[in-house]
Amino acid sequence: MDLALSLDRAAATPLYQQLAEALRCAVLQKRLKPSQQLPPSRVLAQSLAISRVTVTQSYDQLVSEGYLETRQGAGTFVCAQLPETYLQTTAIASETSPSTALTQLSRFGTSLQAAQPLQGPEPECRISFRYGNPAMELFPLNLWRRLLNRHCQSSSSLLNYGADAAGYLPLRAAIADYLGRSRAVQCSPEQVIIVNGSQQALELIARLTLDAGDWVAVEDPGYLGARYCFAGQGAHLQPVPVDAAGIDVDKLRQYHHPFKLLYITPSHQFPTGVTLSLARRLALLDWAQATGTLILEDDYDGEYRYGDCPIPALQGLDRHHRVIYVGTFSKILFPALRLGYLVVPPAWIPLVSRAKWLCDRHSPLLAQYALTDFLVEGHFERHIRRMRQRYDLRRQVLVRALEAEFGDRVTILGANAGIHLMAKFATSLPDALVIQRAAQVDVGMISAQGYCLGKPKGGEFIFGYSQLNEVQIEQGIQKLARVLLAES
Amino acid sequence: MDLALSLDRAAATPLYQQLAEALRCAVLQKRLKPSQQLPPSRVLAQSLAISRVTVTQSYDQLVSEGYLETRQGAGTFVCAQLPETYLQTTAIASETSPSTALTQLSRFGTSLQAAQPLQGPEPECRISFRYGNPAMELFPLNLWRRLLNRHCQSSSSLLNYGADAAGYLPLRAAIADYLGRSRAVQCSPEQVIIVNGSQQALELIARLTLDAGDWVAVEDPGYLGARYCFAGQGAHLQPVPVDAAGIDVDKLRQYHHPFKLLYITPSHQFPTGVTLSLARRLALLDWAQATGTLILEDDYDGEYRYGDCPIPALQGLDRHHRVIYVGTFSKILFPALRLGYLVVPPAWIPLVSRAKWLCDRHSPLLAQYALTDFLVEGHFERHIRRMRQRYDLRRQVLVRALEAEFGDRVTILGANAGIHLMAKFATSLPDALVIQRAAQVDVGMISAQGYCLGKPKGGEFIFGYSQLNEVQIEQGIQKLARVLLAES
Repeated sequence: MDLALSLDRAAATPLYQQLAEALRCAVLQKRLKPSQQLPPSRVLAQSLAISRVTVTQSYDQLVSEGYLETRQGAGTFVCAQLPETYLQTTAIASETSPSTALTQLSRFGTSLQAAQPLQGPEPECRISFRYGNPAMELFPLNLWRRLLNRHCQSSSSLLNYGADAAGYLPLRAAIADYLGRSRAVQCSPEQVIIVNGSQQALELIARLTLDAGDWVAVEDPGYLGARYCFAGQGAHLQPVPVDAAGIDVDKLRQYHHPFKLLYITPSHQFPTGVTLSLARRLALLDWAQATGTLILEDDYDGEYRYGDCPIPALQGLDRHHRVIYVGTFSKILFPALRLGYLVVPPAWIPLVSRAKWLCDRHSPLLAQYALTDFLVEGHFERHIRRMRQRYDLRRQVLVRALEAEFGDRVTILGANAGIHLMAKFATSLPDALVIQRAAQVDVGMISAQGYCLGKPKGGEFIFGYSQLNEVQIEQGIQKLARVLLAES
Repeated sequence: MDLALSLDRAAATPLYQQLAEALRCAVLQKRLKPSQQLPPSRVLAQSLAISRVTVTQSYDQLVSEGYLETRQGAGTFVCAQLPETYLQTTAIASETSPSTALTQLSRFGTSLQAAQPLQGPEPECRISFRYGNPAMELFPLNLWRRLLNRHCQSSSSLLNYGADAAGYLPLRAAIADYLGRSRAVQCSPEQVIIVNGSQQALELIARLTLDAGDWVAVEDPGYLGARYCFAGQGAHLQPVPVDAAGIDVDKLRQYHHPFKLLYITPSHQFPTGVTLSLARRLALLDWAQATGTLILEDDYDGEYRYGDCPIPALQGLDRHHRVIYVGTFSKILFPALRLGYLVVPPAWIPLVSRAKWLCDRHSPLLAQYALTDFLVEGHFERHIRRMRQRYDLRRQVLVRALEAEFGDRVTILGANAGIHLMAKFATSLPDALVIQRAAQVDVGMISAQGYCLGKPKGGEFIFGYSQLNEVQIEQGIQKLARVLLAES
C-alpha cells in the first residue's frame, strides 16, 4: 500500500508529530478506512526515507488517541469505531467546501449542462421491446475469448501506443474487404478509420464540419444520438419527413438553407425501418453534388435483411466523394466492445486521423487484433448468417403475433430488415397511457414520439425483437392486446 | 460471403444480364478480388431470391468474357489475370472521381487540417531514449489474460451497453480508494469518470470549458497533447515559465488575462521532471480561487517516485473544488489498453458524464471489469512496487552513465521520479545536429525544443529510460559521448 503523506524536514515540528498529524488527517478524511491495516513500520519508514523509530512513535501516539489499534501478531489497524468528536470534524470540513458553481463552461458545456439526459428510455419490464442490443447469448463468446488470448501473449510491442490513430491496418483492410463484398462500399483500407462505436464516428464528423449556426438536414423521426452531436456544435437542425420510400428528397430540394451536412440511415431508417429506394438514392446524390452537401450515411444494422437482396450503400453509388459511411460492430458482436468505423473520402484520411488522435489517440488494440481474426477467419460472416436466420424468425413471430392480436388495428411499417420494427396502432389512447398500461402487465414499450422533431403522430411504437425469444415475443404481444383492446 | 448486388425486377433487361453486369462491375472495382471464389449458384440464387438458372447463366456469360473461371470440382472463381482493357477501365473510372476539396469543414476542422502532425518524434534507432511507454515485457500479461477470461464468460448482460457513461462503478470505487491512499486525492467513487486514456480526459475538459478567444495558462516547456486540445478549441495559450520548483506562480500573478483554465503536471513536470513545491502548490490554489480559474492537474506518472516520499496531489490540498485531476493506466499497465480517468468536483459529474456519452457512450467494458479485479486484488500496487524498483535502477544507471561520460558538461534536471529525465548538455552544437550524430550511431534522442512555446534554450534533451535495459542505457550513453565529445 502506498500512502501519500507530506513531511517537511526543514520544519520545527518533529517528524514523528508531522507523521502522526498526516495519518490522523488521512483517517478523518476516510482515505484510510475503518479497520484498514497500516503498513508495517519498517515498510513505511523505508518508503518515507525516515527512521523506523519515528514511525513507531507516531503509531503509538495515534493508538493512544484512539485512531489506531494494534492487534497482537497482526499489525496496526485503523480503529473500527472513531470517537464522535472526530466525525464532527469531518462534517465541518466538508461543509466548508462548497460545491463550486460551473462558472468556467464553454458554450458547448453550457448547452450540454442545460440539455435533457441523453440516454433514451430503457423500460425495465420483464418483457421489454427495447431496441439496439443484439442477442448476446448467441454470440460465440468462447471463440472471442480464444482470439483475445491468442493476442494477449508476450508480444509486448503490441501493447504500446498504436502506430496509427486510424487503427490497426489489417483490421481496416478486413473491413474494407467485407464492406466491398457485402455492402458495395468502395474504399481502400486506408479510408477505413477505426473508432469507439458509431457514436464517436458521428461526433468526430459533427466537430469537423459544423460551426454554430450551420444547417444540418436530419430525418424526422430520426436517431437521437446523431442529433445531440449536431446540436452540441450549435448547428440548426432541419427535420426532413420520411415516407415509405425513405427521406423525402423533393422536400429537401425546397429548403433554401445552405446545408453543410445531411445525416441519413438509408438501409433501415431509424426508427421507421423503411429502406431508401434506389431512385431516391440517386436523386439524393445529385442533390448533394449540386448543393455541396456532405452526406453522413449511418448503416447501423444494414447486415440484417430478410428475404430480399441487400441494397448497395449510398457510398458505393456516389461518384463524387460526397458520402462518409459509418458502421458499427455493436449490433453484430456486442455493444460493450465499443468498436465501429468510418469510411471517409481519401482527402479526409489525414484530417479524421488527427481528430481521432486528439480525442483519444486510438482505439484499444487488443480488441482490434481479435476482431481482425474474427473477420479474416470467416467467423464474422458466419455469425451474421446465423443471427440473420434467428432474427428473421423472431421478426416473423412478432409480425404474426401483432397481426393475430390486433388485426386491422395495427400497421407494420418499414422493410423486412434490421433488429427492430415500428408499428402503428389505431388507438385513441395517448402514447404515455399505452406505455403505462403495458408496464402494468410488465411489458416495456417505447413510443416513437421522442424521436420526432416535427409534430409527432402518436400511436407509433418501436419494437426491438433481437433480445427476446419467440415465446417472450408472443406473450408480450398477447398481454399488450389485453390491456390495449380492453378499452376501445 | 454476402454480395451486395442490385437487381431491378421491373426493368426490361433480363435478370441474368443485370446480374452479370453487377458481378462484372464488382470485379472491375476490385470488390471481388482476383482468384476469389464466388458463392455456389444455389446459395447466391437463394440470397438474391432469384432462380438458380439465372445465376448459372450469368456465371457462364462472365466465364466466356474472361472475368470468371470454373475450376473442376472447386467452383467458380474470379480470374487471376484480367484482360488489359478492363484494367484501363478502372484507371479511367478513378480519374473521373476527383478528390473533393474539404469545403465543408468547421473552424475546428480547418485549424486541424492546417496543423502540424500531432504525433511527437519517435526515433527508430536500435537504442532509442523515447519516453512514455512503460516496460511492457515486465507487465504480468498472463495474469491480465486470466482476468479477461474470467469476465469473458456467458454473462451476456455484461456485453450490453454500459449502464453509466461515467464507467463501471466498482472500478470507479477502486480508483477512488487507491487515489485516496496513495495520492491523497479526496473523492467519492462517483467523482471518478472512466475515459479512454488521459488524452480523452484533456479533450473533454477542453471542450467543456474553452471557447475561441479564451485564455489558458500552460507550463513552458509542456505537454503537447494538452496544448493541441486547447488550441483546437481556438483558445489562446499563455506559456508560463517552469523553474526548479515548478511553474512560476509569481509570474502567473502578473498576467492580466482572465484565465479559464490552468494546465499543470505538478508531480513530475513534463518534460523537465521537476516537482512543484508545497509552497507553490498552496500559492497556486490561492491564485486559482482568487481569479476563478479551473486547474487541470495531469498526474500522468505520479506513481513513480524513488527515494523521497510522494507529495499529495493538488486535488487533495484544494478546498474549493477548483481542481480537476487526470490519471492514466497507460504508464502502469500498457498504453494499448486506452484507459484513464478524471476526478471531477461533485457538481461536474452529470456534465462530464453527458459529454462522455456524446463522445463514445462509454469506454469498453471487458477491460474495465478486468482492471477492477487487478486493482481490488492488489495486483496493481504490487506491480507498481515492482516497477518502481526496476525504474529506480534504470534511472540510476542512466544518471551514472551520463555523469561518468559527460562529467560537468551535463546537468540532470528534475526530481528523482517518473519514467524519463531531462538533461542539459554544455555543447555548441544545435539540437538537430546532436540528434543527427546520435542517429548515426543508432541512438535515438528527443530534443526538448519541440515542447517550448517561448524561446527554446537548446542543448536540453528528454531521456526515457523505462523501455531500455541497464546494458542498453550504458551503451547508448557511451555511444552518445563518443559522437558529441569528439567535436568540442
